[in-house]
Amino acid sequence: MKIQDLKTPALILDYDILEENIKRMQQKADENNVKLRPHIKTHKCTEIARLQVKSGAIGITSSTIQEVYSFAHAGFSDITWAFPFNPAYLEEVFSILKKINLGLLIDSIEAFEIIENKSKSTGIKPAIWLEIDSGQHRSGIDFTSKNAQELANRILKSKHINFVGLLTHAGHAYNAQSVEEVKKIAFEEQEIILNAKEILFNGLPINASIGSTPTISLADQIKNIDEIRPGNYVFYDYSQVLLGSCKVEDCALSVLSTIVSINKQANRLIIDAGALSLSKDTGPPQFKNYSSYGMIHTDLFSKNINQNLRITNLTQEHGIIACSDESSVIERYKYGDKVRILMNHSCLTTSLFDFYYVVSGDKVIDRWEILRGRNLSK
Amino acid sequence: MKIQDLKTPALILDYDILEENIKRMQQKADENNVKLRPHIKTHKCTEIARLQVKSGAIGITSSTIQEVYSFAHAGFSDITWAFPFNPAYLEEVFSILKKINLGLLIDSIEAFEIIENKSKSTGIKPAIWLEIDSGQHRSGIDFTSKNAQELANRILKSKHINFVGLLTHAGHAYNAQSVEEVKKIAFEEQEIILNAKEILFNGLPINASIGSTPTISLADQIKNIDEIRPGNYVFYDYSQVLLGSCKVEDCALSVLSTIVSINKQANRLIIDAGALSLSKDTGPPQFKNYSSYGMIHTDLFSKNINQNLRITNLTQEHGIIACSDESSVIERYKYGDKVRILMNHSCLTTSLFDFYYVVSGDKVIDRWEILRGRNLSK
Repeated sequence: MKIQDLKTPALILDYDILEENIKRMQQKADENNVKLRPHIKTHKCTEIARLQVKSGAIGITSSTIQEVYSFAHAGFSDITWAFPFNPAYLEEVFSILKKINLGLLIDSIEAFEIIENKSKSTGIKPAIWLEIDSGQHRSGIDFTSKNAQELANRILKSKHINFVGLLTHAGHAYNAQSVEEVKKIAFEEQEIILNAKEILFNGLPINASIGSTPTISLADQIKNIDEIRPGNYVFYDYSQVLLGSCKVEDCALSVLSTIVSINKQANRLIIDAGALSLSKDTGPPQFKNYSSYGMIHTDLFSKNINQNLRITNLTQEHGIIACSDESSVIERYKYGDKVRILMNHSCLTTSLFDFYYVVSGDKVIDRWEILRGRNLSK
Repeated sequence: MKIQDLKTPALILDYDILEENIKRMQQKADENNVKLRPHIKTHKCTEIARLQVKSGAIGITSSTIQEVYSFAHAGFSDITWAFPFNPAYLEEVFSILKKINLGLLIDSIEAFEIIENKSKSTGIKPAIWLEIDSGQHRSGIDFTSKNAQELANRILKSKHINFVGLLTHAGHAYNAQSVEEVKKIAFEEQEIILNAKEILFNGLPINASIGSTPTISLADQIKNIDEIRPGNYVFYDYSQVLLGSCKVEDCALSVLSTIVSINKQANRLIIDAGALSLSKDTGPPQFKNYSSYGMIHTDLFSKNINQNLRITNLTQEHGIIACSDESSVIERYKYGDKVRILMNHSCLTTSLFDFYYVVSGDKVIDRWEILRGRNLSK
């Protein structure tokens, strides 16, 4: 089967680019002497995680307990649940801990105490990461605060947990205005976690783990860090192109869509990829000249983007492509034609589909399942 | 089980409000002597569609061919696929037409010809709706255009299709600044489709079908219209509250989430409902004082919203709640507490979950599946 024969909307994954992205990130990790524990929240796909492990990844990172379940069931035995520990899942977590090596994140004494009590009563020692805020101000503790020192002291004294290290995610790199600013944030991300290690733990030989595809992709060097956890790099997307983390030709994922209506007067195409195919993510807001729900490739097989076309609006299943060129690029398209869309945010787009259609060149070579289930019982 | 015992993030559906919303819309249809064909893209749930049919709905409206498959399989035999016909699914559509009464939408001669040719060769006559643009300028034909008259003539001459009427959706009502403006759009929606009937078809006794929850909810009267197709009304959401289509206490759907991290210094709560629970829909952009990814109920059982709290940012699985009140409402919350969120857009939120937890008062009384599959083979 060829790409143009796929029913739409379809999620297309370019195998060759995927393989190259996995290889390049592993090389970066190897050259900098850090372990790679890729975040699988981007792809939610066991085939891709296996390619990452085969290439040298030491384990995986996940964002939800449902993903932990799915990947543990598929045979992955070393997983970090990189989300502040949710006490509602205490029983489930300790049940999984009997089977696999599961890392947990805490950033409060309350979370620490709940886990420590359970560890004490069960004799099971979970691997604990202390999350540090390196500037995103989402979760993670301010390492200069009194709370942080108190928590560090409690962690050091505990005999019931297995403290493995400090972890951070410089998610504010997604708000950077330039490559230089991303590089600066990347430098600070490493600095802050190393400072936290020094100040809170007197330089004890514990692990330092950092994340974020932009910071890892653009960091000039990674020094004295033990582990990196980028996720998005397997696919990249148009937001990463705008941030400078990658080029259009490094983007492995796209959505194939069909033109179902044409309004020539308004210079508009209507396609069958709406908010439930692309997500409502409008990309990095700091790039003011850019405002769209996704970009259109010049043709089905090209790595180039047509800058005259923009997806200007999405409703649930309809996408509206407007043309900014007075010579009307829209004249080139007809009812039933297919277009290939580079999405703003590959992680959110993936979560809306059941399968990847894996392609090499113009050939569809496989179909891989996306484990997007949101329920533990599924 | 009680609401507070649910694992989070969980999608909660208030059965009593749902029942009331279904009853009220059916009453509106009955009083105005129009048939109700509810759009099931909002809920994707056979239990809810059955309640609608039991209450008097004459059939259902769906947005994708996958939904048509799912609901036909579940026993629904009268479905309108309210999306511009996608020629890639020609074989599938004619296969379903052998089993159920399926309505198709066209707005171009190209679509008409593809369907007519297939009808001719198979002897199967699909029900055809001509989509009219009543001001949204998405899909649908401008009834004053030459193209529209040509298409109408072709439709009238054809012996191979079963032309059933004109259909429109005044989706631009979602951009209205006030209730008065929605009412004006509702009036125009009815006017335009009746004018189109008169001009294109000389007032032939064909059906006129209109859509959109805001226009139907707020229309003072519905006159000479045969069918309405609102969808969102079963749940409503915070966007509909802002538009004036409903009150907060009419909203049947919410997301239950857990506080997993607290930043007291920044007056912020971090919850386990991110973009993959709430969607990135920021609500109607015309309400400038309002900017959020969802609102928080004052407590788990109240119908009131806490106006001092806003979800100011979402990443994939994290939600950030900021507090605008200097007296710090956040002081009232502690790690592990649950919050109930009124989402901006219930249709997009639903599409991210596998199940509704159906509640009555504080009791969980059932769990209904959401048919969110995006693939025909599933």
